[in-house]
Amino acid sequence: MNNFTATYTDQYQLAMAEVYFKQGRHREKAVFDYFFRDLPFSGGFAVFAGLEEVLEIIRDLHFSKEDLEYLSDQGFSDDFLKFLKDFRFRGTIYSCKEGDVVFPTRPILQVEASIIEAQIIETLLLNILNYETLIATKASRIRLVAGDGILLDFGMRRAQATGAYFGSRAAMVGGFDGTSNVIAGRNYEIPVSGTMAHSFIQSYDDELKAFRDFAQGRPEGCVFLVDTYNTLKSGVPNAIKVAKEMEARGQKLLAIRLDSGDLAYLAKKSRQLLDDAGLEYVKIAASNQLDEYVIKSLLEQQAPIDIFGVGTNLITGDPDAALDGVYKLAWFNGKPRIKISESIIKVTLPHKKQVFRIKDASGKCVGADAIGLYHEDRIDEMYHPFEPYKSMKLSEFRQEALLNKVMENGKILQEHRSLSQIAEYSVSRLSELPIEYKRFNNPHIYKIGISETLRQERDKLIHNYKQSLS
Amino acid sequence: MNNFTATYTDQYQLAMAEVYFKQGRHREKAVFDYFFRDLPFSGGFAVFAGLEEVLEIIRDLHFSKEDLEYLSDQGFSDDFLKFLKDFRFRGTIYSCKEGDVVFPTRPILQVEASIIEAQIIETLLLNILNYETLIATKASRIRLVAGDGILLDFGMRRAQATGAYFGSRAAMVGGFDGTSNVIAGRNYEIPVSGTMAHSFIQSYDDELKAFRDFAQGRPEGCVFLVDTYNTLKSGVPNAIKVAKEMEARGQKLLAIRLDSGDLAYLAKKSRQLLDDAGLEYVKIAASNQLDEYVIKSLLEQQAPIDIFGVGTNLITGDPDAALDGVYKLAWFNGKPRIKISESIIKVTLPHKKQVFRIKDASGKCVGADAIGLYHEDRIDEMYHPFEPYKSMKLSEFRQEALLNKVMENGKILQEHRSLSQIAEYSVSRLSELPIEYKRFNNPHIYKIGISETLRQERDKLIHNYKQSLS
Repeated sequence: MNNFTATYTDQYQLAMAEVYFKQGRHREKAVFDYFFRDLPFSGGFAVFAGLEEVLEIIRDLHFSKEDLEYLSDQGFSDDFLKFLKDFRFRGTIYSCKEGDVVFPTRPILQVEASIIEAQIIETLLLNILNYETLIATKASRIRLVAGDGILLDFGMRRAQATGAYFGSRAAMVGGFDGTSNVIAGRNYEIPVSGTMAHSFIQSYDDELKAFRDFAQGRPEGCVFLVDTYNTLKSGVPNAIKVAKEMEARGQKLLAIRLDSGDLAYLAKKSRQLLDDAGLEYVKIAASNQLDEYVIKSLLEQQAPIDIFGVGTNLITGDPDAALDGVYKLAWFNGKPRIKISESIIKVTLPHKKQVFRIKDASGKCVGADAIGLYHEDRIDEMYHPFEPYKSMKLSEFRQEALLNKVMENGKILQEHRSLSQIAEYSVSRLSELPIEYKRFNNPHIYKIGISETLRQERDKLIHNYKQSLS
Repeated sequence: MNNFTATYTDQYQLAMAEVYFKQGRHREKAVFDYFFRDLPFSGGFAVFAGLEEVLEIIRDLHFSKEDLEYLSDQGFSDDFLKFLKDFRFRGTIYSCKEGDVVFPTRPILQVEASIIEAQIIETLLLNILNYETLIATKASRIRLVAGDGILLDFGMRRAQATGAYFGSRAAMVGGFDGTSNVIAGRNYEIPVSGTMAHSFIQSYDDELKAFRDFAQGRPEGCVFLVDTYNTLKSGVPNAIKVAKEMEARGQKLLAIRLDSGDLAYLAKKSRQLLDDAGLEYVKIAASNQLDEYVIKSLLEQQAPIDIFGVGTNLITGDPDAALDGVYKLAWFNGKPRIKISESIIKVTLPHKKQVFRIKDASGKCVGADAIGLYHEDRIDEMYHPFEPYKSMKLSEFRQEALLNKVMENGKILQEHRSLSQIAEYSVSRLSELPIEYKRFNNPHIYKIGISETLRQERDKLIHNYKQSLS
């Protein structure tokens, strides 16, 4: 439903691009790192999402006629606009796989391209990867507590407008089963779900007739919303009556839905009423301000809820609302580049790099990723990025290179994977991660280290810079 | 950049629509209210935004060929799909004006249409109005503290993907001056802004040369980012050098930008350095995790900042992330409708209604809106919705009807207003609101009351319902 053109960007990308162009530096090669600094939700991991979408947008990116007319009105020069007219991204992208678990400060994705191409794609890359990674992570946390429960995304009405579309996709990467969002369902082949609102019940003079009509009209996948008037005195008894009528016609009521009140209490009472009526097969769905903490609590109370509809807290990534992913220059025109900062943790890592996941002999992740220069095959010892006396020997461990070439000369190299394939991959990667990184309170901190060579290269640049100031 | 079709909706709208259609009830008239229950940001008001956009989308809404094929695959019946093929919204919409200040629990907009049309537009209406109203409100709070400061939206990279586009629009309704988001600028005619990132500076061997090249390439509206290495020892001195060179060429540096460190301290020191060099005209821009509280604090410390770039906290509506707007049935098939709830404040108001803003003789808002039945011309006394002994005499006050017909038979009645016209209207409406509703801490609570007639009608329905249960 979206038509991305190359003005889907921040103005400063185009301003810088024009200067590069005018100075004749625009074809010089640059390497940028995409990474984030803080894990969302005070959690112990994040789930990387949005990659396949971003690659497809980048592959097709160009300036439309309207874009060029607009930029001309904005005072961009004719020779630069002529250049933009033929703009295509022809660079190379290295990335970890969509669905993998990822951690702060290490490159998740690297762009190697002419500086002008690398800058023009920056904003859309951040805009989509930051949001989808946030939501896939949230969804994954919810999946961790929900076990085999069915998880449905109900967030569309509370999203940032069309952002819902990307959120519904990311929820699937994180392990959701379906969405209420029809256009996302249509375009991403996500199972869609939804039956009735309170308004449907209210439009009838009585609830029983409303349920009967609905069962007549849509007997398949039929779910009755039971809290419009009084859940236990009216909603559930009426649902049971109609479920029995459906049985007589050879049909089966799929579920009832609770959308207010004390969900644990109401689910137990409703389950009892359904079971007493021989309707053990009718499931219970719940919605209303759910998140991973509420679902955990409901299940700890043994609330017999089979289906969870999660809206606002999923789609907004509450309470964080944004992932702080950034895109930093690491190499340009044959030289490593660094950003110094008064805050040591904001100093960037120069050079084109590789990231290794450190695993034991059985293939289990030991809770560490090591960053080296791109040509390093493996890393014998990794160092804490800012605390020089902390290091970890890696020679005895297996090391998996995480950054793979996914685009070359603007062409996508990897085969398209379906959302369920990506979600399956995510489950397998999460299962390799020890449980202490997955708990919600004070999770174990995943180690990120750098190789001796990378550390020396970085420190040399810091040293040179300090000398130039004095 | 968006292509809205009628599958931009929640699945349950289509499920209900099919049942209405099969039961032959789909042409029956319904009235729905759009309202929210809680003010965002613990504030005293909200700014209504998104109306013009929503009306245009509704006017053009239809099911595309792809939509119909998809719904057919999903098992919707052929006769229903035939009906959807010709679907157009032909209803009437009453609304308060975009940019007006609005308050909880009172209708902001009312839809009067066949039930099927009213349901199919529900999700998109909530999806856009909830988000734009949230962001316009946030922007308006920032404008309240920023005085005449220039406010720029820098949120695109931290938004919910394409949601940024709507957020940039809403920020303008709330009083921002421009955006970094080029596609939003292009399509909404918003001034766009932005010059350089750290990567531009890093791509040079020294900062001075980077500034020189930029000034050569884009001398108009030139802003130097001064914190890549060291703001006061390197960034500002280099900016001053190049500003003087620009002066010699008859050009003027517009501003320097601070993006890290203690902004109050750095702004004062930078101002001094600039002034000592005779560069009083060079402005200071600041960015980095700004919101209304940080900007208020900066200005209380007399930090000489002229331009504020606000990103994440604006575009995500932090810390709320969503407005809880809902869409509730008030009338159907010739009868008033109500949703009972175990929580009294969730009981809805039946009937088609009008809302009056209560003003004193001078036209100043007295901090109260009164809700009556649609045919009531004015309200003599309003009652607290749930506390029967609280009332307020209104006979001596001026009363302004807020809900006006903005769409009839699917056609937009109001003339298109530019974003700056809407923003101006918002400023004038905010200026009518006494200051105690605009403070951030424990703002005065705006009164919402209902007319005697509406109260009786509501209580009669509650009574009837209770009798039907016993």
